[in-house]
Amino acid sequence: MRVLRWHGQKDIRVEEVPEPQVGPGQVKVKVKWCGICGTDIHEYEAGPLLVKVTKPHPLPGSKMAPVIMGHELSGDVTEVGEGVTNINVGDRVVVRPTIPCYNCYYCKRSQYVQCTSLGTIGYIWDGGFAEYMVAPSDTIYKIPDSLSYEVASFVEPLACAVHAVRRAKLFPGATVAVIGTGPIGLLTIEAARTMGAGKVFALETLPARYQVAQKLGVEAVINPLEVDAGKEMAKLTDGLRADFVFECAGPPAAMLSALKVSGRGGTIVEVGQMVEPCQFPFGTLWMHEKTIITSQGYTDEFPAAIAFLADGRVSVAPLITAKIGLDDVIKQGFEALTGEERYNHIKILVSPEL
Amino acid sequence: MRVLRWHGQKDIRVEEVPEPQVGPGQVKVKVKWCGICGTDIHEYEAGPLLVKVTKPHPLPGSKMAPVIMGHELSGDVTEVGEGVTNINVGDRVVVRPTIPCYNCYYCKRSQYVQCTSLGTIGYIWDGGFAEYMVAPSDTIYKIPDSLSYEVASFVEPLACAVHAVRRAKLFPGATVAVIGTGPIGLLTIEAARTMGAGKVFALETLPARYQVAQKLGVEAVINPLEVDAGKEMAKLTDGLRADFVFECAGPPAAMLSALKVSGRGGTIVEVGQMVEPCQFPFGTLWMHEKTIITSQGYTDEFPAAIAFLADGRVSVAPLITAKIGLDDVIKQGFEALTGEERYNHIKILVSPEL
Repeated sequence: MRVLRWHGQKDIRVEEVPEPQVGPGQVKVKVKWCGICGTDIHEYEAGPLLVKVTKPHPLPGSKMAPVIMGHELSGDVTEVGEGVTNINVGDRVVVRPTIPCYNCYYCKRSQYVQCTSLGTIGYIWDGGFAEYMVAPSDTIYKIPDSLSYEVASFVEPLACAVHAVRRAKLFPGATVAVIGTGPIGLLTIEAARTMGAGKVFALETLPARYQVAQKLGVEAVINPLEVDAGKEMAKLTDGLRADFVFECAGPPAAMLSALKVSGRGGTIVEVGQMVEPCQFPFGTLWMHEKTIITSQGYTDEFPAAIAFLADGRVSVAPLITAKIGLDDVIKQGFEALTGEERYNHIKILVSPEL
Repeated sequence: MRVLRWHGQKDIRVEEVPEPQVGPGQVKVKVKWCGICGTDIHEYEAGPLLVKVTKPHPLPGSKMAPVIMGHELSGDVTEVGEGVTNINVGDRVVVRPTIPCYNCYYCKRSQYVQCTSLGTIGYIWDGGFAEYMVAPSDTIYKIPDSLSYEVASFVEPLACAVHAVRRAKLFPGATVAVIGTGPIGLLTIEAARTMGAGKVFALETLPARYQVAQKLGVEAVINPLEVDAGKEMAKLTDGLRADFVFECAGPPAAMLSALKVSGRGGTIVEVGQMVEPCQFPFGTLWMHEKTIITSQGYTDEFPAAIAFLADGRVSVAPLITAKIGLDDVIKQGFEALTGEERYNHIKILVSPEL
């Protein structure tokens, strides 16, 4: 079968490999759509980050490089392994890429995100840029008929956004600001509104990205390079600023913007991974009892994401900027998302059937 | 009557002023004991910070400098103003120094700490380093007979510690680390244990301060200048480190220690005000979904603090390093707490009756 494998930094290859065999407790999925994630791009440009190259990951069945990438996928179940009772051949499904050990101190506390040997499909386990993939049955979620395969490939990134809003303990009618309107920022705008936010604002430095945020109905897009973002938020909210700020951009300056646009007692949620340290005035944070939450991935937010997409409360059509076949995934996918025109793209979907 | 008034930076004076008159809705208290707080020392050394010198505070009845300091006080009610029904002459009481407006956006949400015109007794309202003081009746809390006036003067700082532990949402049996063992750090050790902590550790760089923390029964005192605090915590906790870290010290290095000694999914609570910014690796915070809470003062934690002190679950005897009269408050109080021997002191109590 045709697959996309990570071999090394800037070395990914579309190639032919044997179809995977389904083991006990596992499910085989014929992939319909698989989205390219920002984490895939990091692994391509700066990896190995999650991919193992010298020492294997402890998860039984895990792979070292070369490994099949892709973890935002939907498809059909074509085979189930021995002992699988909750999933049947023909089920329309999505796959949660995280595989916890269920045995460590954190798994026993149901904090699967903290699992000390968490494995992630698409990095240490063969993923969804492939005609077929195999995963443990506990990672498989059925989707309703009202949810198309195409839209269902957004369940995984939307689960990240739902997790962030859930961890924030958003209250009804809260004023929200989202910093950075890439895929996760845009889905966070929609998740926050679906989960009860009042007014939602966006902060974005790239004018090319204003349009989609506006299409999703934000009150205003603020460019912190053009105006004082804190003063602008104050002006737009009778001086109150935002109750919740979701930082989905990444550079250190974004954390300082988050501090400025958050109101008294506000909560800042760091959703993006911040690579560089930030010279941060914790005394200012303390002065008005603000909180910094971090949100990484998800635990059990797949059902919520499925529900929000199935009935259209979260709309992903404005986010899809290209649909391509597996043979084009390097040039029209990874290279498009790392080249000069990268900010014209939001989400690129890949299908092995195109 | 004899009082201690703040006139300017490093200019505080014991002097004679007329006894205060009780107005409608107010209560007059004969002061028994009043503790010297770290915030008093900041105002003495680096003020005006909270004291008003050019423009009055919006609270009706507030004072500009010179103002009577002191806000950790206990005493007897000697007079009640018109309309006061919940407090009677002869009641043994403590006074909550914060006076919210009850009318702003935040007060309406019961977030009194965020009140946009919060007034604090001892800075913008005449306080407790005096024979008598007058306060609005809603700031007055009765204390039980089992609680001595001396111990009751700790209700206010203990309320800060209870507020911090409460905001952290401490779970039963949680491993706790407290950074900095000044008065608030030590009370936080006791508050955390009283509110259900498991093992409690202390981090302290001053060997002179080890003893009291040990007397309060911490598992171990770690000196981050002598050992790698993160590795030491890991060694002492089977690799898990602390679920909750209370940062009660203040320097930027303490936030980096907090990050190191906190475990996966851990919560860091900034209790002390951090004056300088800190070069902080938010990516590391994000990696294990850690949270930073800030805790400033208290809202309704006076009843809890009274209960914990009244039945002895929180013991303050080891914290009292001097008991002095009002006439000695400058030399034996403020100068002792700013001089070379300052770290030999924890809490100095002042009585106008000595």
